[in-house]
Amino acid sequence: MSLDTARMVQMANAIRALSMDAVQAANSGHPGMPMGMADVATVLWSEYLKHDPAAPKWADRDRFVLSAGHGSMLIYSLLHLSGYAQPTMEDIRNFRQIGSPCAGHPENFLLEGVESTTGPLGQGLAMAVGMAMAERHLNAEFGTDMVDHRTWVIAGDGCLMEGINHEAIGLAGHLKLGRMIVLWDDNNITIDGSTDLSTSEDIKARYEATGWHVVSCDGHDFDDIRRAIDEALAHERPSLVACRTVIGKGSPNKQGTSATHGAPLGEDEISAARKVLGWDAKPFEVPEQVLADWRGTADRGAKAHAEWETRFAGHAQKGEFERRMAGELPKGFSLDNYIQSLMKEPVKVATRKASEMALAQINAKLPETIGGSADLTGSNNTKAGGIGPFTADDYSGRYVYWGIREFGMAAAMNGMALHGGVIPYGGTFLVFTDYCRAAIRLSALQELRVIYVMTHDSIGLGEDGPTHQPVEHVQSLRMMPNLLVMRPADAVETAECWEIALRQTDRPTVLALSRQNLPQLRNAPDETDMSSKGAYRLKKAGAKRQVVLVATGSEVHIALEAAAALEKQGVGADVVSMVCTALFDEQDAAYRAEMLPSDALKVSVEAGTTFGWERYVGSDGLTIGIDRFGASAPAEDLYRKFGLTADAIVPQIMNKLNG
Amino acid sequence: MSLDTARMVQMANAIRALSMDAVQAANSGHPGMPMGMADVATVLWSEYLKHDPAAPKWADRDRFVLSAGHGSMLIYSLLHLSGYAQPTMEDIRNFRQIGSPCAGHPENFLLEGVESTTGPLGQGLAMAVGMAMAERHLNAEFGTDMVDHRTWVIAGDGCLMEGINHEAIGLAGHLKLGRMIVLWDDNNITIDGSTDLSTSEDIKARYEATGWHVVSCDGHDFDDIRRAIDEALAHERPSLVACRTVIGKGSPNKQGTSATHGAPLGEDEISAARKVLGWDAKPFEVPEQVLADWRGTADRGAKAHAEWETRFAGHAQKGEFERRMAGELPKGFSLDNYIQSLMKEPVKVATRKASEMALAQINAKLPETIGGSADLTGSNNTKAGGIGPFTADDYSGRYVYWGIREFGMAAAMNGMALHGGVIPYGGTFLVFTDYCRAAIRLSALQELRVIYVMTHDSIGLGEDGPTHQPVEHVQSLRMMPNLLVMRPADAVETAECWEIALRQTDRPTVLALSRQNLPQLRNAPDETDMSSKGAYRLKKAGAKRQVVLVATGSEVHIALEAAAALEKQGVGADVVSMVCTALFDEQDAAYRAEMLPSDALKVSVEAGTTFGWERYVGSDGLTIGIDRFGASAPAEDLYRKFGLTADAIVPQIMNKLNG
Repeated sequence: MSLDTARMVQMANAIRALSMDAVQAANSGHPGMPMGMADVATVLWSEYLKHDPAAPKWADRDRFVLSAGHGSMLIYSLLHLSGYAQPTMEDIRNFRQIGSPCAGHPENFLLEGVESTTGPLGQGLAMAVGMAMAERHLNAEFGTDMVDHRTWVIAGDGCLMEGINHEAIGLAGHLKLGRMIVLWDDNNITIDGSTDLSTSEDIKARYEATGWHVVSCDGHDFDDIRRAIDEALAHERPSLVACRTVIGKGSPNKQGTSATHGAPLGEDEISAARKVLGWDAKPFEVPEQVLADWRGTADRGAKAHAEWETRFAGHAQKGEFERRMAGELPKGFSLDNYIQSLMKEPVKVATRKASEMALAQINAKLPETIGGSADLTGSNNTKAGGIGPFTADDYSGRYVYWGIREFGMAAAMNGMALHGGVIPYGGTFLVFTDYCRAAIRLSALQELRVIYVMTHDSIGLGEDGPTHQPVEHVQSLRMMPNLLVMRPADAVETAECWEIALRQTDRPTVLALSRQNLPQLRNAPDETDMSSKGAYRLKKAGAKRQVVLVATGSEVHIALEAAAALEKQGVGADVVSMVCTALFDEQDAAYRAEMLPSDALKVSVEAGTTFGWERYVGSDGLTIGIDRFGASAPAEDLYRKFGLTADAIVPQIMNKLNG
Repeated sequence: MSLDTARMVQMANAIRALSMDAVQAANSGHPGMPMGMADVATVLWSEYLKHDPAAPKWADRDRFVLSAGHGSMLIYSLLHLSGYAQPTMEDIRNFRQIGSPCAGHPENFLLEGVESTTGPLGQGLAMAVGMAMAERHLNAEFGTDMVDHRTWVIAGDGCLMEGINHEAIGLAGHLKLGRMIVLWDDNNITIDGSTDLSTSEDIKARYEATGWHVVSCDGHDFDDIRRAIDEALAHERPSLVACRTVIGKGSPNKQGTSATHGAPLGEDEISAARKVLGWDAKPFEVPEQVLADWRGTADRGAKAHAEWETRFAGHAQKGEFERRMAGELPKGFSLDNYIQSLMKEPVKVATRKASEMALAQINAKLPETIGGSADLTGSNNTKAGGIGPFTADDYSGRYVYWGIREFGMAAAMNGMALHGGVIPYGGTFLVFTDYCRAAIRLSALQELRVIYVMTHDSIGLGEDGPTHQPVEHVQSLRMMPNLLVMRPADAVETAECWEIALRQTDRPTVLALSRQNLPQLRNAPDETDMSSKGAYRLKKAGAKRQVVLVATGSEVHIALEAAAALEKQGVGADVVSMVCTALFDEQDAAYRAEMLPSDALKVSVEAGTTFGWERYVGSDGLTIGIDRFGASAPAEDLYRKFGLTADAIVPQIMNKLNG
């Protein structure tokens, strides 16, 4: 099935030429990696990768992740040469220019053929773990006729040095994700120079120690590449294929050096490279035969796709599979009945417990959820609804014991969401969003429905002290674009937040949940779906309104107590529960002005930094919070210490009113 | 030198009893780890650790890091039993209560004997790498007579699963930090249950692959522990000592299970454990002989300390060493001359380049700086002043090639600062603060002088696109307690910021620096030290002041252009450079009101999220920024696309004034 070597060489050289030329035209970019991995990528894409360029979203395609995302010209070249509708040659000419889908790093939201946004190193590999998990899970649920594909990764030394790669391969090894294959661009070069500058690890031995199968090849010898990939395919473990390559291969004076990594080669060197490569075509032109050879490789995938469609057409679970892959919730899905039951029998529980109660409903109604926790199952209350463990022996399980791997968990959840067919949620302590923040950002940037169950969301966690007490986290996450941060105040709001989060098809959600018990504040059966506007009036002033207290989560009941005390002094006070600032910001001006009227003293109450609350309470408002690190003590002592009690708040408000 | 086994057993049981009792009294905490590691810790502290309880800050003491910080009762017990002035038994009785130095997790700022704050897993081990690096560096500079100590770590399975441990051991192995020894509490238990739930890695093989020496022992057999530690001491590589232990050892019904990990054992079980252990003493009492045996172990360290003091007294470099360990800058250190030279010959350079220029001065004047970059040396411009590489062959070098390990770098810098005698700085792209944010937080919490050189600080980096463009980062870091975030506008401010950062003895600094060139805005020789107030008036309104533009970093010159355009229309406009909001917040009300007067329209201009700027411009102000992810294109195109030009800003201001 392979083409003869000379033709393969030119197919690979097409990648090299496009990469050199595009980077030169942009005067910016990374030619070294695409040139170094051109031979490996040519073998993979033309002979192994199961894909149909005419149907980039075919559900059973192999997933390909360019973890070393700076080498973006590699994937743009591959997509164009293989015959994807995009990128066009014009797109490639405009590499790194405004409006081009050929961005500096590959972006899943700009090109259909790009499975994931990569560039932040190590995360592509970790997302691939999530894709491979989703594949095995759906295979277990829908059978091999419907789901039977592989996950391929190209990773560089940077990906393998990042800590997240340790978490990712630990998971993949433990879960025996044998259909995942990582092609390591083993070129001994990083930006600063030789890898000897900073590492002397035996990477192959490390992967073997972590449950991986390892095989090496000469990354510039097609037969050797095939041999290595065949060996990887045959092995039941996930495989690392160490491809010995020369960075910038083809650049006579620069190859093998970091000079090719992140800068244009220069016109002279490109000319010299063209001679070395035997590439006569002009910039951005591909000789007819080379293009024909590339386009011909699509037949294999088109045939596989057609066979799959035949099997799929007759499959009993076709409709359900389509729904799942489209990311649509089942018709009629709702938590209304559950919320009504709470209205009838109010509960006083921590919102993390309320989350578990909501999940018991959700997991029973939505077969597509896959939950988990980074070794805090009992604390995050993430295991609910009778779901069983996802293990190497049983991929049909829906609960993942992620281990102490917050970043790996978050990135893998991104991979699951990118794969489709599942809705991932996972938990850790809110303070440890710091460990996985870079992956939360990629959830947001990639527009993924990933739900973060972040418990122990303030000093209310008590004794564990400042290392475990998020003070700046809620607010700092609120400023991340395209992310919903929700901090519900009771069991009802928690259920509403869960439903809102599940209905977001193109953005992630962080649920910030309390460790400590909270009274249920809502019990009016007709007041449903209040959280969806981001903020709503929970209590209307009795006396003439002079004050609006704006609180979130575990501080809402404190605001209610403060309001009651104010009313006793004849001061009317509304209480607004600000469940989600991002959703509130999306409301029209009239609604926002109604909630936060200009003629009242507005007071924010949140057990975290006050920085930023001025947006809602104005320059003349009062911001009550904690602008320092927390401390270790029982929660009630801390609330007193930091002045987050009605007794401490009311005098400040009275002073302000009288001041 | 060892005591007989029966007495050693009781010394270890003292740790077990105190741990059980303190957790029970607090009704919160983690007894399992201290009980499991009591035997190992007893051997280490009584026979190996070089320390003098009477002088906790003795410069040449061994450093001991409890990376598994949740087992805090282990170190509180060890400190008390060994004879440190603190914690007292009363402190231990008040474990996890308000005001007690025995916080839920060990805090370096609460107890002298606690070398580092731990709890966020994996970071203790990574900080220890930095300590071991600082030790070898000072040894190379001051000689073995003055500096010759070891770094010991107790780490659990959680520490070893976290990604950061991969980065940390990769560095330690590469740098051959043979005086670092990690005692791994190999108990097969995590919070969720058996480690089998989430990992199947051969940890020993992984450490060996990463250049470590590995030895195993029975963690409950004193002789075997000694044998293993002796072997580790003898080896030239850093060592992992795998101590097979039983979590909660001594608790007859719960030991070996996750039930002992993070909850009190309960009164009944504690009684049963007392019987098993042969421990008759009441809670918080230690039998006389046991205490005497413990206190006796201090003699070894006291003697070593006395011998060291004798050597030290006659050492030619005594004064310099004392200065360095005290963290004092050399008398007369200043960048004034350099700044004056900039005033005479203004430069148009990127602030990352300006940082390099300042560093050339600093590194020549301050022998205590140790710089580095996470594989972006040429981009972060961190290598300056002729400093050479810190390598396994030459620990006297002052430049660290950290590799692609942002989190490992940041944590190791914390360890260096904790060790003392050096001032660490290190660079990566600002967007990758997300990769090391958890360590930046520990810099701030631990009150450490660590300087983060974070370049490519906005969309101004251009073509690399949204994965590399920080939008929310500057603002989100500003809300972290005890952290200075500085965004200088030109070469002069950059030098001022560096000097301010170096003069902070108890807080870290993030320098946010541009990739793109910026004009020098300051050239009045008498206007020096302007940045220290956090914000200052760079340009005074010509016409009657109606507007104050508040800008930072690369947007200050844009604000100046906007102000000039406004003045042409007869609208007077001040321009305030807000170099550091935290320092500005510390100024008195009069200064703040002078900079941000209430009678002017205040307009913030920063190429990042507008969220939070309301604090400075007020409800009626105008916030100009970027509330979405960036894009890939040349920088100038992006500034136009996102409306960050004088042409785009001025009409908005005029509308607001006329609105």
